[in-house]
Amino acid sequence: MNKEPVVAVVGATGLVGKEMLDTLVQREFPYSEIRCLASAQSEGSVIELEDDEVEVEALHDDSFEGVDIALFATDGPISSHFVPLAAAAGAVAIDNSSFFRMKEDVPLIVPEVNAHLLKSKPMIIANPNCSTIQLCVVLDLIHKAVGLERVVVSTYQSVSGAGKKALDELWNQSLAIFNQGELPQEHFSAQIAFNCIPQIDTFLPTGYTKEEAKIINESRKILNLPELKITATAIRVPVFHSHAESVNIQTTKELTPDQFMKLAEGAPGIELFPAHDIYPMQILAAGGDTVQVGRVRRDESVQYGLDMWIVADNLRKGAALNAVQIAEEYIKA
Amino acid sequence: MNKEPVVAVVGATGLVGKEMLDTLVQREFPYSEIRCLASAQSEGSVIELEDDEVEVEALHDDSFEGVDIALFATDGPISSHFVPLAAAAGAVAIDNSSFFRMKEDVPLIVPEVNAHLLKSKPMIIANPNCSTIQLCVVLDLIHKAVGLERVVVSTYQSVSGAGKKALDELWNQSLAIFNQGELPQEHFSAQIAFNCIPQIDTFLPTGYTKEEAKIINESRKILNLPELKITATAIRVPVFHSHAESVNIQTTKELTPDQFMKLAEGAPGIELFPAHDIYPMQILAAGGDTVQVGRVRRDESVQYGLDMWIVADNLRKGAALNAVQIAEEYIKA
Repeated sequence: MNKEPVVAVVGATGLVGKEMLDTLVQREFPYSEIRCLASAQSEGSVIELEDDEVEVEALHDDSFEGVDIALFATDGPISSHFVPLAAAAGAVAIDNSSFFRMKEDVPLIVPEVNAHLLKSKPMIIANPNCSTIQLCVVLDLIHKAVGLERVVVSTYQSVSGAGKKALDELWNQSLAIFNQGELPQEHFSAQIAFNCIPQIDTFLPTGYTKEEAKIINESRKILNLPELKITATAIRVPVFHSHAESVNIQTTKELTPDQFMKLAEGAPGIELFPAHDIYPMQILAAGGDTVQVGRVRRDESVQYGLDMWIVADNLRKGAALNAVQIAEEYIKA
Repeated sequence: MNKEPVVAVVGATGLVGKEMLDTLVQREFPYSEIRCLASAQSEGSVIELEDDEVEVEALHDDSFEGVDIALFATDGPISSHFVPLAAAAGAVAIDNSSFFRMKEDVPLIVPEVNAHLLKSKPMIIANPNCSTIQLCVVLDLIHKAVGLERVVVSTYQSVSGAGKKALDELWNQSLAIFNQGELPQEHFSAQIAFNCIPQIDTFLPTGYTKEEAKIINESRKILNLPELKITATAIRVPVFHSHAESVNIQTTKELTPDQFMKLAEGAPGIELFPAHDIYPMQILAAGGDTVQVGRVRRDESVQYGLDMWIVADNLRKGAALNAVQIAEEYIKA
């Protein structure tokens, strides 16, 4: 790309799409033009962009002519159709849906971990699952230093990962409880206000949810450790923004909490909370770009073990920011 | 005890104390008289008890004359002073504070696990930490069947474990967010409304909180496995009632999810949710007596591993009910 690229954001009116647009502007991504694509419903609506206004275009098969980079904030069915069309039209497609993530010829990228895969200039790149990204930023550091033996993750995931309607449902249910009214419930399988739901996405025959399987399988692919021993339990908590994770890590060789903190201090994308009593929290991570890591302590139940608490904004590092970072690395690669 | 016992509830006006009174009545505990003891502030206030009214007496050193069983819903400083006085006056003292729990000569009882220790008729009995009780009911089943190799627990603990003021704080902070007002914050170290706080109780030099250390140390004592490999991360979530736990269990011998469910089905105190997509939740457990167990699945990251989700009402099985069950077993023992 000799001139600054034309960037399309597909699904521009959704939570992740809007976050992508904001991130492009905030990070001064070098574009010559931004196109906002969405469903026909949103056609003609206007999105404010810095000191610019962009009119939303309806997504069509031929929307990608002249586009250099297409960021997809769409779900599997939409992505599966339009991502290949974008690539065929010559645009690099960076897709946030799960559709392409496990395909062998599609790189699954967390820039801090495996940006080198962009050097081969793939036309389709998958953006990983939100809870997987923040986990892999930390696991990769440890893997490269001393090797990973086994990982046990329990998540505390906010509702924004489930979209605007989910945010509304937490808000409206909470209000209904205050007003002693009837609880609206359309999006979640159960009451989310003042309750934790141990289900994210649908169930597989193994008893794991698809979200848990994503954490397991995508981590293995991103870290390039197809045999990594890892298990996950994914829980939805009544929090608006950011995902938190309680992570137990067995390492192959000794890595003390102090040694880990030396690794993490200043590592790309990581914000370390070294003191015990000052810790990452969802309200602190929301709106920020870093993966916050704290509560690091030795797990005495194994020879080499660490417990820690990892928090990040699932719409930013968990989705939009990671996608924009992929685009940045792609241009550099 | 030939006649029906005189029962005193100490700290009768607090959340756990009230729950103890309700539980005594609901379970038709055989008492000849109930005495409600509390701080001088509450003296003379009246507690409704079935079709009875009981006047609250101020707690004094000589409050335990004529008392057969004293249930303490008090904190460490109060219990450390009054529990020995009760025992010296001839009352069996069942204490919910952490003060006596790890003392060698004080049994720490979960009736489903180690009620046999009551046969020696100890005068002081400790009621375990809330999050530990529900965990041990399940771990003991597994330990007795196939042996425990290692346990990794992450908790999702409601605010009621921190008392009435904590319930008010979650309520008032949530309301303030709706009204865009200033957030009242007195009890918790950070905002609890729509946020998870990775701190329960104070920090130890190891980086673990006291709550996490309680889960580890009390489980070892209750299960009589002083070397049990176990680690814990305790998180406060914006939920009013009931604690949930994501538990990863390595066993010594094979125990498939189906085999575990056969064990758990009908086991005392356990309510099994065998289907994948119908699971325990805090709103379901609140107000109930059972330890709900669900989301049971094989963890493929170890030779013999299980993941599961365990939920119970922390004020009932986690405190009041367990104390009353101890009293019931004591009478029978």
